[in-house]
Amino acid sequence: MRDEILEMGRKARAASHLMATANSDQKREALEKMASALELERDSIGAANLKDVEQAERNELGKAKIDRLIVSERVLEEMIEGLKEVSMLPDPVGEITRMWTRPNGLQVGKMRIPLGVIGIVYESRPNVTVDAAALCIKAGNAVILRGGSEAFHSNIRLAGILRESLKQAGLPQDAVQFVETTDRQAVLDLLGLEEYVDVMIPRGGEDLIRFVAKHARMPVLKHYKGVCHVYVDSGADLEMAQKICLNAKVQRPATCNAMETLLVHEAVAESFLPAMAEEFRRSGVELRGCPRTRALVPNCAAATEEDWPAEYLDLVLAVRVVENMDEAILHITRYGSQHTEAIVTENFERARQFVRQVQSSLVLVNASTRFNDGFQLGLGAEIGISTSRLHAFGPMGVEELTTTKFIAFGNGQLRG
Amino acid sequence: MRDEILEMGRKARAASHLMATANSDQKREALEKMASALELERDSIGAANLKDVEQAERNELGKAKIDRLIVSERVLEEMIEGLKEVSMLPDPVGEITRMWTRPNGLQVGKMRIPLGVIGIVYESRPNVTVDAAALCIKAGNAVILRGGSEAFHSNIRLAGILRESLKQAGLPQDAVQFVETTDRQAVLDLLGLEEYVDVMIPRGGEDLIRFVAKHARMPVLKHYKGVCHVYVDSGADLEMAQKICLNAKVQRPATCNAMETLLVHEAVAESFLPAMAEEFRRSGVELRGCPRTRALVPNCAAATEEDWPAEYLDLVLAVRVVENMDEAILHITRYGSQHTEAIVTENFERARQFVRQVQSSLVLVNASTRFNDGFQLGLGAEIGISTSRLHAFGPMGVEELTTTKFIAFGNGQLRG
Repeated sequence: MRDEILEMGRKARAASHLMATANSDQKREALEKMASALELERDSIGAANLKDVEQAERNELGKAKIDRLIVSERVLEEMIEGLKEVSMLPDPVGEITRMWTRPNGLQVGKMRIPLGVIGIVYESRPNVTVDAAALCIKAGNAVILRGGSEAFHSNIRLAGILRESLKQAGLPQDAVQFVETTDRQAVLDLLGLEEYVDVMIPRGGEDLIRFVAKHARMPVLKHYKGVCHVYVDSGADLEMAQKICLNAKVQRPATCNAMETLLVHEAVAESFLPAMAEEFRRSGVELRGCPRTRALVPNCAAATEEDWPAEYLDLVLAVRVVENMDEAILHITRYGSQHTEAIVTENFERARQFVRQVQSSLVLVNASTRFNDGFQLGLGAEIGISTSRLHAFGPMGVEELTTTKFIAFGNGQLRG
Repeated sequence: MRDEILEMGRKARAASHLMATANSDQKREALEKMASALELERDSIGAANLKDVEQAERNELGKAKIDRLIVSERVLEEMIEGLKEVSMLPDPVGEITRMWTRPNGLQVGKMRIPLGVIGIVYESRPNVTVDAAALCIKAGNAVILRGGSEAFHSNIRLAGILRESLKQAGLPQDAVQFVETTDRQAVLDLLGLEEYVDVMIPRGGEDLIRFVAKHARMPVLKHYKGVCHVYVDSGADLEMAQKICLNAKVQRPATCNAMETLLVHEAVAESFLPAMAEEFRRSGVELRGCPRTRALVPNCAAATEEDWPAEYLDLVLAVRVVENMDEAILHITRYGSQHTEAIVTENFERARQFVRQVQSSLVLVNASTRFNDGFQLGLGAEIGISTSRLHAFGPMGVEELTTTKFIAFGNGQLRG
C-alpha cells in the first residue's frame, strides 16, 4: 500500500507543477467539461451509486447515512451547478495582491500561487469528490481524494469522470487522484506523505478530524465544533432579534453555524425572553436556561455547566441572561469555539466593540449566524470552515487554497 | 514540569485576550519602554551575559558558538534599534483588508486579528528573545519563549526587562513568558500544548527545526534550507549579472539567501563564465561545474549529483550551463528548496515567465538573492523565513503574525 500511495504523491506533485501555470481558460474549460460529463454520465453514475446504496442497505447502515450516500437527481444537479459556478469564479492564481517600491528602487510585491498538492479525507457524501476537486483545480492545485468506504463505487466513477475531463482540456489527469481502496492503512500512508502533500483537509465528523489531526505529518486545515452565540443587546430591535434568533436556531439546527447559546442583556430580558421562548416552543426547540432565564420563562429546564460549551446540533438551546456586553463576551470567550457570533444591537459603539473584541471566524451585527458559509459570504463556494487561525480562519474558498510568494523587480540591486 | 508549562499556557492564553484588544498606543509605548530599559539595564544584562559566556568557555563550546552568545555593545544597540523600529511600524490589528456587499445587503469584510499565542523555540542568540517578542507584541499576540540553555541567564534577564516594560505600559506581563529551565522535557511539554499555543516557530539549525516539526501538536512555521539559484539568461547584461552573482554568493555566504547554484544560458556561457569564474576565484569561491562549465573554466572541479541540491553555506558554488530557461526552471524545480531564485535578463517575456513559473518564496528579476529578508523587502523586521506554503511563504513580518476573521454588518438578514 505504502508504495502505491507514494506513487500517487509523486504523480500529484508532478501534476501540481503543470497545474500551477495552467492558464485560466484551460481550468475553466476543464470544469465546464466536468459539468457536461456528469450530465452525460448520469446513468453510469447512478449504477455505481446503486451498488453503494445496496451494499449500505445490506450492512444496515441506518437511514441518515444511506440518505447522505444517495446521488439523487437533485444531488447530481447540485454538483453540476457547483462545477459551473466554480468555473466562472475569477482565477486567483497570478493575482498581485500588493506591490511597493523600496528606497533602492527594487519593486517588491506579493503574487498569489497555488498551495501545491492538497489531500482531502472525507466521509460518506459522494458530492465532496466533485465539489472539493473543483475548488482545488480552480486554484491550480493537484488533489488526492480519499472518500469514505460506503461511497466507494460512486467516488471512483465520479473521480474517473473528472480525470477524463482534465485530459480533454489538456491538463494532467493526475491533478485529480482518488485512493482506490477501502484499506484504512491507506489513510495513514497518505497522512505520512509530507514530502508530496502540502496540506490535508479532513471533511466529516469530529472523530475523523481528530484522527487526521493526530496522524498527519503535514499541516491540517480543520474545523472542530461550532458553539455559536447570539447576543441580544440592551435597546436591540426586539422584533429583528426574534427573527434572527429563530433563523439562527431552527433554519437548519444540525449545521455548525446554528446558534447553540442565546445571551440576553438583562435590560431586555423581560420584554424579549417570554415571547421568544414561546416562539421557540412552537418550533419545537427545547430550552435550558440560567436561573434568571427560568424566572422569566415558565417550565424552562435548568442549564448545567455542561450546557454552555455544548454543540447540540439539534433543537436544543442554552439561554443566559447577562448583565452587559462585557459579560456576554466573557461567556463567549470562555465557552465558545471561535466559530460564529452575532450581536443584535442598535448601538453603534457596542456594535463596533463587539466586532473588535470577539475573536471568532465570523462576527456579525444584526444578521443570522447561519451566514457563516462560503457561498453566503460571497466566496463562491467553500471547501470547509476553518476554526483554527493559521492560514485560513472561517470559510475557505478558492483564495484560501492559494498562498502568496514575494516577487521583486530590479535593475541590478545588490545588498550592501 | 508539565504542570508549570501548562500554567504558562493558561497565562499566555489569558494575556492574549487582553493583547488582542490593546490599543496601538499601548503597544507602541511598551516597545519604547523596552528600548529605554535595555539602555538603562546594560550593566545587569552584561553581568547576566558574562555568566553565560564564562559557562560556555568552561564547557569549551567553540568560538563560533560563543560569539553568537555575546551581547556586545553592538548587539545591544541593534536590539534597541530593532525595538524602536518595530514600535514605529503600523499596527496591523483591526485593519479591514477588504469589504464587499452581498445581494441581500449584508456587508462582508475581513479584519486582521492576532494569531493568539505564539511559541518560539530557539538556540543560542539572546537577541532572538528581544526581536521575536517585539514582533509578537506588535501584532497583539502573547509569546512563550524557550531559548537555548547556553544563553539561559541572558535570556532570563532580557525577558524580565520586557515583562517589566509591558507592565509599565498597562499591558499584561504574561504576554511575554520565558521558560526558565534548561530541562529538555520542557520543550516537549511546550510542543504538546496545542490547546494554548496557536503556532510554534522554531529558530535555529536544521536539527532543532526537524525536532520541533516532529513533536509539535500545533502548526509550525518553519524554514528548512535555502538552495538558491541565479539564472543568467541569453542576452543578459553580463556586467550586471556578474555583480549580482558575486553579491549573491560572497556578501554573506553562510546565510540562507546566498546563491548555491549558478545556471547560465549556453548562448552567454562562453562570454560570461570565464570572467565570472576569475572573479569568484579572487573572492575565494570554489567552483563545481557541469561538463560544459568545465570546458570553459580551467581547473574547475566536477559537480556531482550531490552538488545540485547542496546548501553549502560557504564559499562553494555549483555551476551549470543550460540550453534555455525551461531547462533552468526544471533544474530549480528538481533541486531547489523553494527559497529564493533570481533571473538576470533583458527580455521582458522571459522575465514575466520566470516570475510566473518559479514557485519560490521570493522570485527576483535583476537583483541579488540576498534581498530575501524582511527588512530588505520592507516588512520592517522578520521573525524568520517560511519555506512551507501554509499561512506564510517567505519572510514573516508583523502581518504574518496575524490572521483575518470575517465580519458582517446587516440589518436583520436571515438565511432562507
